[in-house]
Amino acid sequence: MIVTLAGGVGAARMLSGLVQVVPPAELTAVVNVGDDLVLHGLHISPDLDTVTYTLAGAINTETGWGLSGETWQAREMLERYGGLSWFGLGDRDLGTHLYRTQRLAEGADLAAVTAEIATAWGLELSIVPVTCDPLRTMVTLAADDAGPQPLGLPAGTEIGFQEYFVQRHHSVPVAAVRFEGADTARPSPGVLELLAAAEAVVIAPSNPVVSIGPVLAVPGVREAVAARRPHVAAVSPIVAGAALKGPADRMLTELGHEASVVGVARLYAEVASVLVIDEADADRADEVEAEGVRCVVAPTVMRTPEAAATLARTTLAAVGAEAIS
Amino acid sequence: MIVTLAGGVGAARMLSGLVQVVPPAELTAVVNVGDDLVLHGLHISPDLDTVTYTLAGAINTETGWGLSGETWQAREMLERYGGLSWFGLGDRDLGTHLYRTQRLAEGADLAAVTAEIATAWGLELSIVPVTCDPLRTMVTLAADDAGPQPLGLPAGTEIGFQEYFVQRHHSVPVAAVRFEGADTARPSPGVLELLAAAEAVVIAPSNPVVSIGPVLAVPGVREAVAARRPHVAAVSPIVAGAALKGPADRMLTELGHEASVVGVARLYAEVASVLVIDEADADRADEVEAEGVRCVVAPTVMRTPEAAATLARTTLAAVGAEAIS
Repeated sequence: MIVTLAGGVGAARMLSGLVQVVPPAELTAVVNVGDDLVLHGLHISPDLDTVTYTLAGAINTETGWGLSGETWQAREMLERYGGLSWFGLGDRDLGTHLYRTQRLAEGADLAAVTAEIATAWGLELSIVPVTCDPLRTMVTLAADDAGPQPLGLPAGTEIGFQEYFVQRHHSVPVAAVRFEGADTARPSPGVLELLAAAEAVVIAPSNPVVSIGPVLAVPGVREAVAARRPHVAAVSPIVAGAALKGPADRMLTELGHEASVVGVARLYAEVASVLVIDEADADRADEVEAEGVRCVVAPTVMRTPEAAATLARTTLAAVGAEAIS
Repeated sequence: MIVTLAGGVGAARMLSGLVQVVPPAELTAVVNVGDDLVLHGLHISPDLDTVTYTLAGAINTETGWGLSGETWQAREMLERYGGLSWFGLGDRDLGTHLYRTQRLAEGADLAAVTAEIATAWGLELSIVPVTCDPLRTMVTLAADDAGPQPLGLPAGTEIGFQEYFVQRHHSVPVAAVRFEGADTARPSPGVLELLAAAEAVVIAPSNPVVSIGPVLAVPGVREAVAARRPHVAAVSPIVAGAALKGPADRMLTELGHEASVVGVARLYAEVASVLVIDEADADRADEVEAEGVRCVVAPTVMRTPEAAATLARTTLAAVGAEAIS
């Protein structure tokens, strides 16, 4: 079994490479749920949906989130009412949230509902929320809010991740990140056992702080990954000092880390024995290795399915796991 | 002020007549919420929405419920997942439920949210839920469930109103109806005062048991209406022994009432001094009056806006209220 620790878009691309090179039934994605939110009474799991929709070939490729063929009738009505409309709820996407919310209300846990949704899309890999318990990434603003007015929150205010990421377009500096509920969250059934038995663990090129951070914050997960360190390879989400998507670079700097492959190496050195970095960062390979992590240089930008498959093969090979194609 | 006690489709038509003959700002609809339900985490108020959409000219005229120009993308996704899809949630309609649910979660009461929605549709009349507290019409099955399988509930089982009305297409006989929460529900702010001050109270041609019944079941409302009995006119929803829409006729019979204008007169005699019946029932006018209710015979089937306006004028005149046009 190959286990991938996953956030959203970057992880979904990595997984779309992995499913090409290992049997999907032998793949498990352990996915961040710190981004989850309840909006309009609906339980929304953005990273789970991005991974599911991407692997189903149903993602909106223009936005990187949501479904292709989407319409926005519900949102137009919300706008008529002057309701919250900053979080993009497409009509098709709403069907997923309605189903998830109903099943959770019936007593199903998030892992069961996620599996049902993946099955409905015909997926063979396992998609597992890292925990079925509430886990919420909270962001403390470093400066007064200059985002969409009339929000106007003062520096020091703590807001939910999506209020930072979507409502404010991650355009306000961050002073701190906290994972609410992490103290008491339990790993989803089977997650620790899967990590213990995995042939390889891949840390996908997701935001180390707010995508992989919440996954590792669930009690027992960091230890379980660290225990398999020789078999754990991370792929850097930072290429030439910048995030391919999202605020990872700025956020790393704002939180006192280095927004570079070396900074990523430091963050992962305890849990991963290998860091795969992009060719653009080849000149920093020695610095990465100085952090105690073996450095593999490869093309990491997954512009095509073929590029994703090649990166998947390279990453697995780096920790001695065998690709079948 | 003219106050109308209202259910769904029949009441909406009656109100569309009333707004033509009195200034809308002097009209209040006190609407049934016994049909409300929470589905997929969303608070749905079918009668409030039918009244609002109809008066806004936005109702789906083919179905009598939901919005015109509707699409069904969310529902198609729900069907893909095998989720609950018996309750028709159109994409546009979902916008209303999302807004209502979010506002209730923020602490607004149902009356405030309903007013906001009516205002967003440009309506000038007041639409008020009879109560902001939970009130749920529960239906006891009289026979084993022969509705959509594999439901298969035994006789004596109590189900929610929409599970009877929509999921089973009101095709199973009813042994009893109960209004859960009626003991402790409080009338919405202003309802009792409005009734006390109203120039006239119109009981719309809605189902007397499950549409007007829950309205009168809210403590204080029946007494407040009865106190104004000389000014209260009801319009019979039964024409020639049949309901124009829905199961009112069968339900009346099943619950031991007479499915006729005489049966309706008996049900309303304590609260209304006038019953408006259709010309088709003219031969029963004496029997209606024998129940202690003055009988007005008029065309009551509102096939056109003009017919609705004429019925509104007739009904108001019967209790001495003045139409302005």
